Amino acid sequence: MKYLMKLRYVGTEFCGSQIQPNVRTVQGVLNIAFEGVFGVKCKVTSCSRTDSGVHANAATLTVELPDGTTPIPCDKLPLAVAHHLPDDVSIFDVSLVEDGFHVRHDVVGKEYVYLVHNAPIHDPFLNHRAWFYPRVIDEVGMANMQRAADALLGEHDFSSFMAQGSPVATTVRHLQDFRVKREGDMILFSVTADGFLYNMVRILVGTLIEVGVGRISCEDIPAILAACDRTKAGMTAPPEGLYLNQVFYDKNCIFDSN
Amino acid sequence: MKYLMKLRYVGTEFCGSQIQPNVRTVQGVLNIAFEGVFGVKCKVTSCSRTDSGVHANAATLTVELPDGTTPIPCDKLPLAVAHHLPDDVSIFDVSLVEDGFHVRHDVVGKEYVYLVHNAPIHDPFLNHRAWFYPRVIDEVGMANMQRAADALLGEHDFSSFMAQGSPVATTVRHLQDFRVKREGDMILFSVTADGFLYNMVRILVGTLIEVGVGRISCEDIPAILAACDRTKAGMTAPPEGLYLNQVFYDKNCIFDSN
Repeated sequence: MKYLMKLRYVGTEFCGSQIQPNVRTVQGVLNIAFEGVFGVKCKVTSCSRTDSGVHANAATLTVELPDGTTPIPCDKLPLAVAHHLPDDVSIFDVSLVEDGFHVRHDVVGKEYVYLVHNAPIHDPFLNHRAWFYPRVIDEVGMANMQRAADALLGEHDFSSFMAQGSPVATTVRHLQDFRVKREGDMILFSVTADGFLYNMVRILVGTLIEVGVGRISCEDIPAILAACDRTKAGMTAPPEGLYLNQVFYDKNCIFDSN
Repeated sequence: MKYLMKLRYVGTEFCGSQIQPNVRTVQGVLNIAFEGVFGVKCKVTSCSRTDSGVHANAATLTVELPDGTTPIPCDKLPLAVAHHLPDDVSIFDVSLVEDGFHVRHDVVGKEYVYLVHNAPIHDPFLNHRAWFYPRVIDEVGMANMQRAADALLGEHDFSSFMAQGSPVATTVRHLQDFRVKREGDMILFSVTADGFLYNMVRILVGTLIEVGVGRISCEDIPAILAACDRTKAGMTAPPEGLYLNQVFYDKNCIFDSN
């Protein structure tokens, strides 16, 4: 029996999502919580890894019960798990999936949101929840950021926007949507692709901010892409503004038993 | 020279606003910050005390410089102070006031906001920012809460809604506005009065929540008021949902030098 569920967490107090010895990770607290709920070690698999400080509004994971384990109805599971989870993580939208479903391999797209608090004075309520960037970006800068975002759409080799890290089979990704808007003092970036390279969203946002303040021209984006050279793109935005917002699957591969 | 300014803080990591030895308080970090900015001890006075865990969106304070201190222009002060403040406090909207102005005695009204996260499952992003109350209050309950709020408006002896604590000259207060509304999973209470007794907002909200779930009838509010007995009102809502939102002064007693 395999459950698919959505996961929300504040990344601030975690050393990332992936399990590691001797540090607090999202996967670590999930393993303990599900063992507490089902009374037996379960196989918990996450849709992706996030870095220390990065948040999730709706990451996904699957939980596989060993044969013979007493299942819990999908609609009862969020509350049952809540009693075993710390208060910076929660589970919602639980369904059953076929055994062949893979929460990472079957992903067809992901959406990240990045929040920049763009105001002269820091807001205490946004500590660890947004990147505080005090140099205010005007309407011209906002329009230039959207032009740069548009120039990044489509299928490209994004190696200029990848940090050194885990090796990947290909650095080609399909950027399906990339929007920038201002709501009061907050600039919201939302970006959807079939997949992302290591630190890709943070480098995309850092580069766009440099476009916004005029350090990089939006006309230079095609050349930055073509260079396939990390040093040609802009800075890496810090982790605290980044939220994994949605994970997309082909509808055919999921069935809902709620 | 006397500055009036607004103050925003996350109350979670403070043992309240009032200075006390050996614990971290809002007043304590402000005293240190202003001494750092002006190079001399300043007289810092706050509009009110808040309890441990209670937040402020816009509290007020005055800062009096000793004679001979070099002043800083009002518009430069928020950033100058920011370098000396921890990241859970900020200062904004600075103006100069006449020496006779008193930040506490001259208050003509205050608005508090209280946030209740009313959903079956906890939201990690609302930890310490709202009261998580999982029993969902329906439309009838919402309407009853507003009826109870309306019954509390006007000038009354609010001693049924006061915790034991500091003695006060009178327990009569004038409740000018009290609104309850739902936005998604959040119930927002906003309450304005000429002044508030100790824990008064938290007892008002706790009582209204008990009206919302049907444990107290909105018809009982006049009798609860008339009893002048704390045991007749409802529970005390926890501190984490409470925000000091606005402090009102008579326009004549403030002059703005910005």
